[in-house]
Amino acid sequence: MSLTKIEACVVIPASGSGERYNMHPPKQFECLGQKPIISHTISAFERIDCITHIVVTTPQDDDLQLMMESIVKKFHHIKVHLTKGANSRHRSIFEGLKCLKCILKSENIARDPVVIIHDGVRPFVDKNTIMDVIQNTKIYKAIGIVRPLVSTVISVDKDDFLKESLDRSLYWASEMPQGYMFSLIYEAYLKCSDEELNHGTECLKIASDYSAFKPKILKGGDNLWKITYQRDMAVAREFVSSHHLRVYIDENDKTHCCIQDLVSSENLNVLLFAKEELSASNLKSDNCLLFYSSLSLQSFESNLSFLIKSIENYTEDPNNWSDKYGSSNIVAIFCAQTTEMSSLNEVHTMLHRHSHKLLSHNVHLYCIIATQSTLSEPTLRCLNKILGDHEGTFAGQVFLF
Amino acid sequence: MSLTKIEACVVIPASGSGERYNMHPPKQFECLGQKPIISHTISAFERIDCITHIVVTTPQDDDLQLMMESIVKKFHHIKVHLTKGANSRHRSIFEGLKCLKCILKSENIARDPVVIIHDGVRPFVDKNTIMDVIQNTKIYKAIGIVRPLVSTVISVDKDDFLKESLDRSLYWASEMPQGYMFSLIYEAYLKCSDEELNHGTECLKIASDYSAFKPKILKGGDNLWKITYQRDMAVAREFVSSHHLRVYIDENDKTHCCIQDLVSSENLNVLLFAKEELSASNLKSDNCLLFYSSLSLQSFESNLSFLIKSIENYTEDPNNWSDKYGSSNIVAIFCAQTTEMSSLNEVHTMLHRHSHKLLSHNVHLYCIIATQSTLSEPTLRCLNKILGDHEGTFAGQVFLF
Repeated sequence: MSLTKIEACVVIPASGSGERYNMHPPKQFECLGQKPIISHTISAFERIDCITHIVVTTPQDDDLQLMMESIVKKFHHIKVHLTKGANSRHRSIFEGLKCLKCILKSENIARDPVVIIHDGVRPFVDKNTIMDVIQNTKIYKAIGIVRPLVSTVISVDKDDFLKESLDRSLYWASEMPQGYMFSLIYEAYLKCSDEELNHGTECLKIASDYSAFKPKILKGGDNLWKITYQRDMAVAREFVSSHHLRVYIDENDKTHCCIQDLVSSENLNVLLFAKEELSASNLKSDNCLLFYSSLSLQSFESNLSFLIKSIENYTEDPNNWSDKYGSSNIVAIFCAQTTEMSSLNEVHTMLHRHSHKLLSHNVHLYCIIATQSTLSEPTLRCLNKILGDHEGTFAGQVFLF
Repeated sequence: MSLTKIEACVVIPASGSGERYNMHPPKQFECLGQKPIISHTISAFERIDCITHIVVTTPQDDDLQLMMESIVKKFHHIKVHLTKGANSRHRSIFEGLKCLKCILKSENIARDPVVIIHDGVRPFVDKNTIMDVIQNTKIYKAIGIVRPLVSTVISVDKDDFLKESLDRSLYWASEMPQGYMFSLIYEAYLKCSDEELNHGTECLKIASDYSAFKPKILKGGDNLWKITYQRDMAVAREFVSSHHLRVYIDENDKTHCCIQDLVSSENLNVLLFAKEELSASNLKSDNCLLFYSSLSLQSFESNLSFLIKSIENYTEDPNNWSDKYGSSNIVAIFCAQTTEMSSLNEVHTMLHRHSHKLLSHNVHLYCIIATQSTLSEPTLRCLNKILGDHEGTFAGQVFLF
């Protein structure tokens, strides 16, 4: 099936009050890296081309609504529409579907897109899972996704004695995202009872009970988990930190605000840190480290020296470093302000000197020189020559802006 | 009910091959802090007085059995008996119960203790929960413990279409530990079918089906979780690190091996680090930091200076530190080698000088001087005077050994 023919929309209920989590503001607003959980969740869908609209339901509290509005604005979530949620999960989803109906109507096209229903606190859903749900929804009309149960499920009688213990091999934990043809799930919500709207927990049941289709159930990967308890934040933080590039910036640098804006607006998987936060435990991460400077050549050199000093602070014997932490990659970005040949030679000498030292700690320096695109051909050639691989100590490239 | 009258034993199945986790060696052997998960789990029970025997079932693999033996030896688990597990969870538990029966018989006392069944990969069970299970087992004979379901539970038909969606409010996730009167659960295992022994997952069901008692079900706290997936290790590491005291030791210090042995053998909730690993992010933890030295006064002073330098590396303006990281507590332990009055005055002067500096960073120094118990009364009084609160800059105590 050609994906270009598929259009999908998303409804994300994010109206929770954080009661179970015992948090104010509720957990969808808690920060992971540079942005709130809900923004990570939105980004997971926003970056998929065939998804056109994302309806997010907000908490009923006025302050939290404003907070959600400012998040959507700050992180440039251009596909997002906000609508006020309700007192129960099902009612919030229904509000989201109603909002989506208005949007579809306002665009004056009679169509029945796939609608994905997800949770605001499941930020780690991957593109393959989303595409799988969308494609299967076109075929089966209603799609659920499950994981094996971790614990046996039991029920108790009114006096809290064991009533029933379910055979774990026959049951599954129902996860998100789920997919439905819009008309199917919208009409199912129109038909279902108040009791169901107030106390139900499963959209699949509503789709199954109030439509002509039985939902098809897919088996999902183990990234399909929900941030429920405070302890889940530890997993979330580790996930974000292992999937993001660390960039250390010099806060004296005139351009550091631009970098922060860029990272926010482009939803880059980048974590920004102050230069001073560089430590051995950060360097030993598998991630490539970016070290940024757009100051003068002297300041750039002093930043590089700082980096080397940070490494040497943790080891007297250079060989110790790689024994303890393995090899690391460091990307240094230097915005060159000069095109003078003599200065370029200085850059060359300086990089060569420092990269040699870094290499002795098994740290590989890769240097990007960002400079204006108005450079003359000879200068550009010279720059490229400077950044060519010199005796294996460093390599790099020229980036023109 | 008086707890002195209760005797309890524990069976911990730890025979898993790590299949679901996809790990070799399996996850019960993975280290959390200074010791393997299984050792943390054992310690949770071993530190409770009324628990007399802990039977741990080992994997069937010879190497893993040896590994388990060495763990029990290394971490001085004196209440532990090892017995080989079997091919299924139930069969392993049954092997554990058989081993326990032999132990009880060998002690020649006709008695029916409470037996707790737990999992090797649930290291964070707390004393209150264990005591609650033990006491309720004396009353109800069989005790389970549950947590609310995080996801709705569903079943599917043979073609993977939705069959049933359970009402989440009526079902619970069955967790561990569970408690049984020994004779009840032992006889239930004797009676149950091979099918049940090979494929069942729930001891409560066996107790319920093959005894005259319905298990009573308690509601547990959210620490009752199981390390199942690799991502759960992030939570476990954060838990261990937030519940342990961090001790930074000087590896040049002659006594640092003794400290390591002490921490291992006494099952102390202490994480040891090399002095060089001290960083701002460690200092900002809520935990008290211990900084240990038994070198000469000069070396102790240089270690204190190192500590202060580490702090100052992260801030030019002293007030910045507390803005950024709040206040910290540091405990410095100094093993005094001297009882000369003149040297004691040096200690006084040195501590005063440094604690004043630390206080300017909102770091409170608490100093323990460990020294021989053969000190004369005047010297002891002098030491105590030295460590009295001086102008609010530091306080401490003398510890005699």
